[in-house]
Amino acid sequence: MAVRYSPPTPDQLLPVPGVTLGTVAAKIKKWQRDDLLLAVFEPGTIAAGVFTQNRFCAAPVVVCRRHLDGDARIRAIVVNAGNANAGTGDAGIAAANATCVAVASMLGCAPREVLPFSTGVIMEPLPVDKIVAALPAARAALAADHWFDAVSAIMTTDTVPKGASRRIAIDGVTVTVTGIAKGSGMIHPDMATMLSFMATDAPIADRPLAKATREIAAASFNCATVDGDTSTNDSFVIAATGKAGIPPVSDEGDPRFAAIYDALLAVATELAQAIVRDGEGATKFITISVEDGRDSDECRRVALAIAHSPLVKTAFFASDPNLGRIVCAIGNAGLGDLDPSRVCFALDDVLVVDSGGRAASYTEEDGQRVMKNDEITVRVRLGRGDASATVWTCDFSHDYVSINADYRS
Amino acid sequence: MAVRYSPPTPDQLLPVPGVTLGTVAAKIKKWQRDDLLLAVFEPGTIAAGVFTQNRFCAAPVVVCRRHLDGDARIRAIVVNAGNANAGTGDAGIAAANATCVAVASMLGCAPREVLPFSTGVIMEPLPVDKIVAALPAARAALAADHWFDAVSAIMTTDTVPKGASRRIAIDGVTVTVTGIAKGSGMIHPDMATMLSFMATDAPIADRPLAKATREIAAASFNCATVDGDTSTNDSFVIAATGKAGIPPVSDEGDPRFAAIYDALLAVATELAQAIVRDGEGATKFITISVEDGRDSDECRRVALAIAHSPLVKTAFFASDPNLGRIVCAIGNAGLGDLDPSRVCFALDDVLVVDSGGRAASYTEEDGQRVMKNDEITVRVRLGRGDASATVWTCDFSHDYVSINADYRS
Repeated sequence: MAVRYSPPTPDQLLPVPGVTLGTVAAKIKKWQRDDLLLAVFEPGTIAAGVFTQNRFCAAPVVVCRRHLDGDARIRAIVVNAGNANAGTGDAGIAAANATCVAVASMLGCAPREVLPFSTGVIMEPLPVDKIVAALPAARAALAADHWFDAVSAIMTTDTVPKGASRRIAIDGVTVTVTGIAKGSGMIHPDMATMLSFMATDAPIADRPLAKATREIAAASFNCATVDGDTSTNDSFVIAATGKAGIPPVSDEGDPRFAAIYDALLAVATELAQAIVRDGEGATKFITISVEDGRDSDECRRVALAIAHSPLVKTAFFASDPNLGRIVCAIGNAGLGDLDPSRVCFALDDVLVVDSGGRAASYTEEDGQRVMKNDEITVRVRLGRGDASATVWTCDFSHDYVSINADYRS
Repeated sequence: MAVRYSPPTPDQLLPVPGVTLGTVAAKIKKWQRDDLLLAVFEPGTIAAGVFTQNRFCAAPVVVCRRHLDGDARIRAIVVNAGNANAGTGDAGIAAANATCVAVASMLGCAPREVLPFSTGVIMEPLPVDKIVAALPAARAALAADHWFDAVSAIMTTDTVPKGASRRIAIDGVTVTVTGIAKGSGMIHPDMATMLSFMATDAPIADRPLAKATREIAAASFNCATVDGDTSTNDSFVIAATGKAGIPPVSDEGDPRFAAIYDALLAVATELAQAIVRDGEGATKFITISVEDGRDSDECRRVALAIAHSPLVKTAFFASDPNLGRIVCAIGNAGLGDLDPSRVCFALDDVLVVDSGGRAASYTEEDGQRVMKNDEITVRVRLGRGDASATVWTCDFSHDYVSINADYRS
């Protein structure tokens, strides 16, 4: 169960003019559920994406990068769950290309206008024949209100579908943003194991859209970590169909850009936090805020050192105020000249460490009280500057081990 | 249970002339077992140590560094389990100093000739009165053959006592090396949560001893990782009593130095591997060897990326050949210009990945067969140089979570 996350109902995921979505059971694995998503965009749609930094990036990531290089126009995305098409070498690239060719042939567009995505087990050959055979049924299922079906079809170890929408008014015209995401394990900044697709009908031009996509990824998905593993397949794409009846937004200085950006960021942040709340085995949602550092990079390093410590994560799982483990993690963040005597940290309203030692006001009762919460903020002050950074993570439970020990079976 | 590790019997831990050890139940925690170790060295003993790189290093680490700075002579070490005296600020330093003063007063030496060590819970005040009160009984228990009692007294979550001895002949004279270590969780290079004490009666001078201590730590304990957390208290000390009847070894070029070094390294390696074999919840001992890199640093980064991946570690626990997780971890090691198509890896005798993709010869049966072993070697070839590095680690089991969720209770 995701921590304090209510998945959207189908009607809460608002249609985006210019986008239709269809799903089908291609039976990539031995399951009955839908596992293939086709989303089709009307002509004129442009897109931008950010992708995994893993050197063993998956074949679909290689193909997506090529297809977006120099030409942002897209007509479709195709996503399968159950197989990541990663670590599959040249055969994997050929399979991803074959999928794009099949979609393009069906829709009457160029293969480079199709973006392929895969999520699931690494290093197994992609059953591309099953995907190609299922495409006509996916096309027959296309509808504007199928966002909930879409996110359900791309889930792997996710326990809940994750999606969100926003509507804003620009010059009296309604503009819609809808996004979906999957991801639960192998979640780490730059990026998480994670696919997220967002669409808006705002007519944003390619350059501001690319910039917005990069910045929004940095401020949302790249602040989420479940287990420190950056997957081979992470992809985040925003598509803008331009169907909203407003003049094109081609400049970042345009005040309408800021309004659209804020709506996109709000949806992305909700999705990124939803991924952590649904982290494999998660029972708690932890916000780690590191302040008063010299720059945001060192703040982020400290936040990630805390977020990745198995000892800290198991202490949160146990609701055990074994807070020395956070002290230890701060000391391990690689800040060679950190002065421990200036470090403070608090859990929610409870000051735990003051000037590098246990705060005089701290009591075990207070520590136990706050550790029992299912949503906790760790606020660290480094006492050496005015930069800050925030990371979201979850605890580390028996279920994490169970889920990952049994994943392939 | 430690993986394929038979703890030493008391008689296998050989006395080192010039060293006596005594233990006592100081009742640092609510337990009946001995938890305080006093080791006394005859005059003329010199020592060298390496200590944690954690910025929140514990009070005893601060005091040890001061006491060894510029004068290597020591007369005693005093070690308590149950409380790490870390994150305890100035009061912690005062407590460590008070312990040294009490030992020095009892033995008639200078406080700076006493080295203090603590291991256990972080950020709780050290019950220094209990330690001081227990010192006379520890002194009364001093004996040369108490190495097994000594290591038993400093255990925390360790399931077995870890110790080893070697005897070598130098110019027809027997020289002895005996070492003990504790540590099971919060184990990571530079250094592990770990205390290790070794003694030899070889008359090594302070400079070659310091060099040997640094190099041996790098080649043994700093190749061991259980959970990626560097503790606040890690300490590794070698004491040389000089009681063996051979002339002083004051030069690293002396062939006798090489012989003694090899014996020290053999004991340290055995102890470091024993810590991993007794890693919290460990069911498998994994050797990760990364070869054909540009330098040993990048090989080590790849080895640690594999060793620290919770997904890799849970797959080993499950005996599940979900080997894409190793591919993913290699891709995450931060080698920005790594060419995946040159990467190969094997598990024991089974080639899994060849030229970046699944090896043609690989079968699921072979993968399952080798993953069932309780001792497995992962051999990665990066295909871009001739450097290498090796790291030892263990798997990640339900028991790891249980042990660390319940540690303080």
